[in-house]
Parts: sequence; C-alpha cells; structure tokens
Amino acid sequence: MPRPGPRQVLIRVRANAISHREGMILSGTYPLPVKPGLVPLCEGAGEVVAVGEEVRRVRPGERVAANVFPRWIDGPLRWEVTDQLGSSVDGLLTEYAVLDEDALVHIPEHLSYTEAAALPLAALTAWNALTGVRAPGPGETVLILGSGSVSLFALQFAKLAGARVIVTTSCEERAERLREMGADATVDYHKVPDWPDVVRALTGGRGADHVVEVAGDLRRSLRAVALEGQVSYIGFWLAGPDARPVDCATLFFSGCLVRCVAIGSRSQFAAMNLAVEEHLLRPVLDRVFGFEEAREACDYFLSGRRFGRVVVSHE
Amino acid sequence: MPRPGPRQVLIRVRANAISHREGMILSGTYPLPVKPGLVPLCEGAGEVVAVGEEVRRVRPGERVAANVFPRWIDGPLRWEVTDQLGSSVDGLLTEYAVLDEDALVHIPEHLSYTEAAALPLAALTAWNALTGVRAPGPGETVLILGSGSVSLFALQFAKLAGARVIVTTSCEERAERLREMGADATVDYHKVPDWPDVVRALTGGRGADHVVEVAGDLRRSLRAVALEGQVSYIGFWLAGPDARPVDCATLFFSGCLVRCVAIGSRSQFAAMNLAVEEHLLRPVLDRVFGFEEAREACDYFLSGRRFGRVVVSHE
Amino acid sequence: MPRPGPRQVLIRVRANAISHREGMILSGTYPLPVKPGLVPLCEGAGEVVAVGEEVRRVRPGERVAANVFPRWIDGPLRWEVTDQLGSSVDGLLTEYAVLDEDALVHIPEHLSYTEAAALPLAALTAWNALTGVRAPGPGETVLILGSGSVSLFALQFAKLAGARVIVTTSCEERAERLREMGADATVDYHKVPDWPDVVRALTGGRGADHVVEVAGDLRRSLRAVALEGQVSYIGFWLAGPDARPVDCATLFFSGCLVRCVAIGSRSQFAAMNLAVEEHLLRPVLDRVFGFEEAREACDYFLSGRRFGRVVVSHE
Amino acid sequence: MPRPGPRQVLIRVRANAISHREGMILSGTYPLPVKPGLVPLCEGAGEVVAVGEEVRRVRPGERVAANVFPRWIDGPLRWEVTDQLGSSVDGLLTEYAVLDEDALVHIPEHLSYTEAAALPLAALTAWNALTGVRAPGPGETVLILGSGSVSLFALQFAKLAGARVIVTTSCEERAERLREMGADATVDYHKVPDWPDVVRALTGGRGADHVVEVAGDLRRSLRAVALEGQVSYIGFWLAGPDARPVDCATLFFSGCLVRCVAIGSRSQFAAMNLAVEEHLLRPVLDRVFGFEEAREACDYFLSGRRFGRVVVSHE
Repeated sequence: MPRPGPRQVLIRVRANAISHREGMILSGTYPLPVKPGLVPLCEGAGEVVAVGEEVRRVRPGERVAANVFPRWIDGPLRWEVTDQLGSSVDGLLTEYAVLDEDALVHIPEHLSYTEAAALPLAALTAWNALTGVRAPGPGETVLILGSGSVSLFALQFAKLAGARVIVTTSCEERAERLREMGADATVDYHKVPDWPDVVRALTGGRGADHVVEVAGDLRRSLRAVALEGQVSYIGFWLAGPDARPVDCATLFFSGCLVRCVAIGSRSQFAAMNLAVEEHLLRPVLDRVFGFEEAREACDYFLSGRRFGRVVVSHE
Repeated sequence: MPRPGPRQVLIRVRANAISHREGMILSGTYPLPVKPGLVPLCEGAGEVVAVGEEVRRVRPGERVAANVFPRWIDGPLRWEVTDQLGSSVDGLLTEYAVLDEDALVHIPEHLSYTEAAALPLAALTAWNALTGVRAPGPGETVLILGSGSVSLFALQFAKLAGARVIVTTSCEERAERLREMGADATVDYHKVPDWPDVVRALTGGRGADHVVEVAGDLRRSLRAVALEGQVSYIGFWLAGPDARPVDCATLFFSGCLVRCVAIGSRSQFAAMNLAVEEHLLRPVLDRVFGFEEAREACDYFLSGRRFGRVVVSHE
Repeated sequence: MPRPGPRQVLIRVRANAISHREGMILSGTYPLPVKPGLVPLCEGAGEVVAVGEEVRRVRPGERVAANVFPRWIDGPLRWEVTDQLGSSVDGLLTEYAVLDEDALVHIPEHLSYTEAAALPLAALTAWNALTGVRAPGPGETVLILGSGSVSLFALQFAKLAGARVIVTTSCEERAERLREMGADATVDYHKVPDWPDVVRALTGGRGADHVVEVAGDLRRSLRAVALEGQVSYIGFWLAGPDARPVDCATLFFSGCLVRCVAIGSRSQFAAMNLAVEEHLLRPVLDRVFGFEEAREACDYFLSGRRFGRVVVSHE
Repeated sequence: MPRPGPRQVLIRVRANAISHREGMILSGTYPLPVKPGLVPLCEGAGEVVAVGEEVRRVRPGERVAANVFPRWIDGPLRWEVTDQLGSSVDGLLTEYAVLDEDALVHIPEHLSYTEAAALPLAALTAWNALTGVRAPGPGETVLILGSGSVSLFALQFAKLAGARVIVTTSCEERAERLREMGADATVDYHKVPDWPDVVRALTGGRGADHVVEVAGDLRRSLRAVALEGQVSYIGFWLAGPDARPVDCATLFFSGCLVRCVAIGSRSQFAAMNLAVEEHLLRPVLDRVFGFEEAREACDYFLSGRRFGRVVVSHE
C-alpha cells in the first residue's frame, strides 16, 4: 500500500474505462511514446483513502477522478504539462493509486464510480471541443460523425447547450438510438456518400456551425462546415494511418477554423462535471466487466462495434 | 402610400410593441436626443408589400421585422450606425413604412406578427447580453433581476443554452410563473435584501457566472457575480436617475467584467431568430391592444406592473 | 461617364495593383467562378468625383479605396456578402467606377494613390491573419513563409505589433532585404529543408506562436507551429493544385488552430488603415506601370519573382 | 536556513520592490485580510539555492521571481488560488524564502535582480490589463492615467504592442519624461479638467480603445473610452475610499467593457517576461535602497511622488 507524500492523495480505484487509446497502446500503434512497465489505463474513478501533508483540495472519503493530463490544470495545453496517465506516468488499472491532488476532480454526485470512470477521456474531449474556442448554442447546428464514445458525449453536450444536432451513422438501429438521445437528424453515410450535401440542405445551405470530427473523414467534414464555422479535429485516432490526407483546396475553401483537440485541462473537467451534475447526465455504458476481467474487457472493446463505453468495475 | 427607392422595402406594419424606452420618449425623460415629429416606436413586424430596385434580401409577401438600429449590420456597435428607429429616424407606429433592406430580418415561422413585434428590443437585448462576449452554458449559473421584458427573454434564452437560472422577484405569484418558465430558483429581494448572499449560497460560494442587470441595482449584482464572471449592464433604463451610484471598492473586488449592452446588430437578430424558430420559443405577451388603442396601450404599459410584453396589433 | 445612384459613389480610379489572383483569372485557373465580361482587377484607389443621394460616408474630393468584398462590412464572412470585385461584380481597371458607399474606406493620408492601391488584397489578408482571431504581440513569434506580397505586409504588421518575426526565403539577397525590413531571423528553406526544426530551435523548442502560411507548405508549417498556436492558411493560392495534401497525423499532433483567411471586411480595412497611417507604413512597391501598360504590368507580374507589389498608375 | 520539501525551492532573495499595496498593509488600510506575523512584501527576485524532490521547473543557480498569487498558474483567477504573498502567506522581505516551484518564473536575462524585483506586481498588472481580454495593437489608442508604477509599465507595453498612447499628468516635467518613454500625447488633467474631451478630440471623436484606469477617476475614464472599448479597472487602489462613485448613466452610455484587473497568473508572468526579454525592456527605477534600509525605503515610498519603482537591494 503506497503512502501519499505532500500534496499527494491515495486513491482506491473503483472503476476504469477502456478506450481506443488503450487499444493502440496495447497493440503498439499509439503514435506517442509509451514508457514500458507503467500501470496502464488513463481513465478511472475512485475513493480518496488518505491524503498527504498540505493537501487542500480533497478529503478522505471523497469520490474523485483523475485528469488524463495530471499536470494540466488550466489555460491552454503547454508542453510542460503533457504527461499522460498510462503512457508517460503510471495509469489507473490498479487497486490503489497515488496521485497529485492537482490531478483530481470531484465526480458528480448522481454518478456511480462505474459511470464516472467513463468521463475523463471521451467526455472531456467532447466538452473541450464544444466549449473550448467557439461554443455552439441555440440556433446553431452541430454535426457529429458516427456514434463512438466521443460522439455520444458530444451529442449529449450539444443538446444540453441548445444546439441542433445532426449525426452521421451507417446503421438504422444506431440512428434510432441517437434520435432517442436527442439527435435532430441522422444521415446514413453509406447510403449517402455525399452526406455533406445533406448537411448543407438541412442547414439552409450554410453548413454546420460546428463539426466534431472523430471519424478521420476531414475532407467531408470540411465540405459540411459553415463559412467561419469550426471543425474540432479529433478523428485521426480512429482512422489511424488510413485517414485520407486533406487537399489544400478543400481546406481553404471551407473558410473555417480547424482546431485540434487534445482532451482537456482539470479546470475544464471540473466545469464539465458541473454541467453533468446539474443536468443529471449519465454516460452511455455498453458493457461493464469485473476487475478480474480487464483483459476480456479490452478484447471485447477491440472486437467490434459498441454503443457507449466499456468499463471495468472493481466493485 | 410611400414608394421604396433602390434597396428599400415597403412594409405593411402589422404589430408594434411598447417598451420602457417609448414611455421615456413620451414623457421626455429618454436620455438620448429625440428628433421631434418622427413616427414613434422602435419595435414592429410586418409584411413586405413592395421592394425597390436591387433589393436582394427580401421579397414581397415575406414577413419581416426591423432592427432597432437599422444601420447596425454586424460586428460591434460603432457611432456611425447608431441611428435608432423612433428617435433619430422614423419608427414603426404607422400603417406603411419604408425601410432599407439592410435593416430587416425574417421573422420566425411559428410566430404571429403580434408575437414577432415583441422581439426587436427586449429579446435582442437579452440575446446580446447572453451571447455577445461570454455566453453562459451548461454548468454555469445566470442570475436575472426581476421579471421585466428583458428578464423574461433572458430567462428563456439562458434555459435554452443549458444554464441554471436564478431570478429575483418580490412577488410569489410571479415567482411561480418564473419557475414554470424554467427558473431553477427564485429569491425574494424584499424579504431578503441581502440576496447576493443567497446567490452565493446557491452557487457553492462562487457567485453567478453571468448577471443580467436590468434593475439598476448594480452594487448588489456586483456582490452576486463570480470572480471573472460577467455583469451585462442594461439596468440603468429602469432605475433611471434614481439608480444608485456604484462605489469603486464593490466594483473592483467583484473581479468581474461589466459589459454595457445596447440591443444588438441585425446579424445578432437573425441568429436569435434561428434559435427562437428552432426551439419554437414564444414571447410572453401581457396584453394585446388594437391599432386604434395605441394610446391606451401606452397608458396601460405605464400604469403598472406587467408580466410580458404589451403589443399593438393592426389586424 | 456613369452616374451614381442613391448611396453610390463615382470614383476616378488613379491606381490599380496586380496580384496572383488576377493572374489566375487571366489564365483561367482561378478556383472560383468568374463572370465573363466584367471590368477586371479587385484592387484600386481613387478620388471621389460625385456622390449619389443619401451618401454619408464620403465626399467629393476624398481619396478612397474599395474593399475587395464590397458587401462585407463587418463581422465574420457570410455567403450573402461574398461578391468580389473583378470576378463576380465589376472591378477597378477602369477610369471611372461606380461603387456603393458601403464598399469604401478612406486611404491613409501619407500614401499616394499608387501606394494605396497596394493595400486592399495583400495587406488586408495579412492584417486579417494577424488580428482576426489570435493577434500575436510582444513576446510571441510569427513565422512568415517567403517574401510574396502578403508575406511582406505580414512582416510589417507583425513588427508593428511587437512580435518577433522569422521569415523563410531561399535567396540571400531577399533575406537581407527582409532583415532590413525588421525580420529578426531568416531561414533558407532550400539549404535547410527541415526548417521547422530551425524554427523550433529559435523558439526554445516551442515553435512559432503564429504562422502566416502563404506558400502551400502546410505540412511544414504544422511542424513549426506551437501547441495551441495558430496557422493562418492563405497559401493554397500560390501553390495551386500542386499544394501537397496534409496528412492527418501532422495536423492533429500540431495541436494548433488552422484558420482559413479570406481577405477581410471593410471594417478590418479601416482598422488597418488607422495602423498604417499612425505608423506611416508604406507598402513595398516592386514596379509601377502606366495605365496604358496594364497588360505589360500583368506580363511582368507573371514572368518572374518580384519583391513587393506591381502597380498600375493612372497618373 | 529553511529546507525545501518536495516541489519546493529555496531562494536567496536579492531584491524587493515596494508598492502602494505594502503601504496600505503597513498602515492597516489594505482592504483584504492580512494575516499577522507574516514576512511582508509580495515582490522579490532572487537566486535558487536548493531544490526539493521532484522539482522540475528550476535548478540551483537560476534567477527567479515569484508570482504574487503563488498558486495561480494559468487560466482565469479563481477563489481557490487567491493566496497572496505578504498578506495571506509569507512574503519576500527576507534573506531566504521557500516557495513552491509552481510559484516561480525565470527572470529576463538582461535584468539585474534589482530590476527584476520591479516586475511582479505593477508590471504584471499592466500586462494583464493590456493582454488579458482585448489586447490593443497598431491603429488603436491606449489612454493611461498618470505616471504611477502600473502606468509606466502600461506605457511601455502599449508602445511595444504598436498602440498609440495618451497619458494624463499634471506636471510638465513628468509629461516630458513620459514623452521620452514614447507617449504620443500627454494631457494636463489639472489645466484641463475635461480631459476626456481632449482624448476624444485626439481620436477623431471615437475615444480611446483602451483605458488603463489606475487613478480612481472612473467617471472620466468612462467618458474617454470608445464605444465597445475596454476600461481596465485597477484604480481603486490609489484613490482608496475617496474614489468617487460612478453614476449609472455614465457607465451605461460609455457602451464599453469594464474589466477589473487583479495582477495576473504565473503563465501571464512568463509571457510578459518573454516580451521584456525580447525587447530588452527595463523598468523605470526611482530609487534603490539597501536591505538594511527597508524601513527608509517604505517611508520614502510613502512620503511623496515618485517616478518609477522603489526597490530594496540585498546586494
């Protein structure tokens, strides 16, 4: 059992979530350096069991989650705070973890640990995309690609903010679930390869004010975005090396802002949690595994298509 | 019957709204110059009956409203575009009005003329306050003072944008209506003169992220706003010369941004209408008078407290 | 001699500038529709000789230039104001032109018509890039690619704003002129194909806070930009269809904001002119031709490398 | 000799600066709580002599200054990081101080310790005012009130950023020094009590785009600011309880943004230091005292008018 030093906190981890990032790390395709021998997994939630000297932000018994970038507190991302749990420093697939108090946020009261573990990566990425530079609101249209984890959170957050949401998906069953979650329109990108035209038609020709680009189909996103709109670019992760390059004409004539989004700061995490708590939002969980089944959870995650997050619960 | 020149539009006015501004103009207390002999009233909605040469933005038969600043198209307010309908140029209490096409916006489809006439001044002021510099969203708290016209729209818009809303009011009946409209909490400022403390208690000590200051009680608003929050300052109009001055310590230690809000641009008006249309929002109308009753409408407006707008319908 | 209608202005054109855009229009490679039979050239400056009714913004005898987007007054670019002089409406290679007063700005007092004609396209593009979303200032580094017209203005404006400037160039003579104009460092992109590494070395590893991308080498620009920095993307025009596509990994890991910049609004033009006037800035002119030599001016422009603008003077 | 704990740094303090804040603390008029028995003075610069475990940001031998808010790292000010050196935690009038590494910035290379000690309070306040929300640049006018410490830095920073600067002062000798430092115009507020009119005349009627309000004369500042301009409100400190309250009409009709500015974050401090270093800027020092003369330095500071900072050097 580790002991927390000054400003450190000992956490009993209660749940972890599995993401595409972890799949890449496992398979050796993660495009950033991964230190060997680290505790894996960047997402987790747990209970404070002990605090070191001078800790002010949390107390034993409180329920917390850690920011994936444990040193990124506020403001823009800077190189000096790019440590990441589970790749450059120890992650959270463990019973007890010691973390700096500066890495922690309190988790929303209405969420279980299992649910809270689903927030640090996918939810915060969606939150940063939709609030970081230009926040879409009522009267604006957000285009979301597919129904991956980031997309589902983006749909939930965009609806909270009063925006109209269009989602692309190739599966009618998913389309139905997305509409139940609040999607105002869905577009089948298999049936309609020129789906940017549909988005334009649905927006009176203007295009979407904001595109949450998680599919690696940046060229189509650029054709679907409004002049002076924003494309939040996250999608490279899913498409990987197969993502098609972007020709410069499509980029230029989009007349938009492309913003590369890398999860978020602890301060953004705390702001997101206020929204989640206020609106009693719950993450969509696809399946929950036990702590002993972490490997199976990973295999399940990698084996096919999910709708919502795959979580490992220690309880 | 006037004829529209190039880029001008002839409108058959169908409804007008009466605001505190018009009361001040009538009573000679409006703090800006008023040209004598002008057609009064800055708010109205009507039908395009004819268009001059080169008009591109509207067509006969379309339903439109005019921006109160007919020359303020987009971007920040500048002196060169501060003409105002009904005080420096002709207003809209008339059967037929000729306006520049640049002054016009299309009105939301689901609204009657009577409802649409309620938007140009009060709604656009609330919209500009809540979207112009820092737009509050989910997880943030908006404090709204009282239940005047701007306040009611601010409540509607803040709720659309996912914010939590606290409203001050001194009347339980109004408090109930405000809660029905979505207010998350109401505070009785008569019973609790130190209502800023209540706002702080309701926000975990932080204060409101955004205050829509329409009551001329800026000192209390400054005590209720969060550090680095925003006070949208509109309130001088209601309190008039009796508004209490603000001591510099209260201002400084608020640590906030005070933004003086002057209605909005045509482009903001159009953006607001998209939101109104998307969410099928309707203005709260207190009472509708006939065209012949314009004077009574004004008297009624001035005579007491209302809940919602007083409109003159020409139909 | 045309007569100005209401809100129109008759201008005696005194000078025009020639840009890459005009070369593309002449050679049929301009990637936007060009209406046949129009007066060509989007850049010009001249004297007001007559004004129509209701004109308020200018008076006969005043010296003015027209905005390339004559209907884009303020705020962000929107489709409804994308008319362009010389491609969708008549341009300025003419003795007398009639323009809406809304299209005009006064030119800085210290500039001749010949100099003023050099501002509307290249200077305003540089100005919009450097002031439109994130304006670099003292302590920040701006990277400028090459010594084309936009680059020279970007260098001048970035220095005015107190930024440090690095410019890439492949010619030592040009490098010297750039340093004379204020460039803090120059990098020879022929000798050092991995010039982004040099930029990083010159900025303590951070990269440039702002890149004015005019060379169509977006991939290298993305490697040279700082995390959360901005790339102002203008460069497609020069590289044309040969611009190399951008792979998604380079884009994503730049962690930056890519903003597509399309000249600017009239209001930005006016703001730029205030800066130009205050600092007595002069555009770099490469060569001035007479009105009768417009064709030669074009040929000269297209024939080789210049340093500064090619202008046609009617005087 | 204290020992630094984990993430702490032992600093040999080499110089301190004295500000109005310290005068208020000494005289018991500081409007925020002051813990008794603390080491006084919030401004200082020194040398790192030892570092605790896990310290990454600095090394022994490096020259550093501490942020006045030692826990405010980046992003907006929040209550949880409002500790202040010298009032709620130990300050720097001491030979050796232990500080968190998070509180420190490296000082610009060309500055002596004596000069560097002049930056943390006055310079960072001016920097935050001029870069925090709306940064004035070329073509814009900054109005600066008087020639106190914040004003002198504001003048230097505004000139670096290419803005035009107008300064009010009541003393011709000071006016001359201000013009030598780059002020484009000075206005004698004694001879011309209606100096806002002069500012308007000097700006073509528009008013100043940015006012650095350090004099407690907010009403006049509001009359001098441009529509949609910014007043950075700092001035309460100098005028103290005598600052005249602001009437609501003057505030509203200014049509501006009033921003209350409270020094700045460590990240802003680092950004400022980059600018100071790049431009080899030096603070204006009025007089330098020895460490043993700290009390005399305070008396001198309080006794009269200075031009520049009063510093205590330990060397």
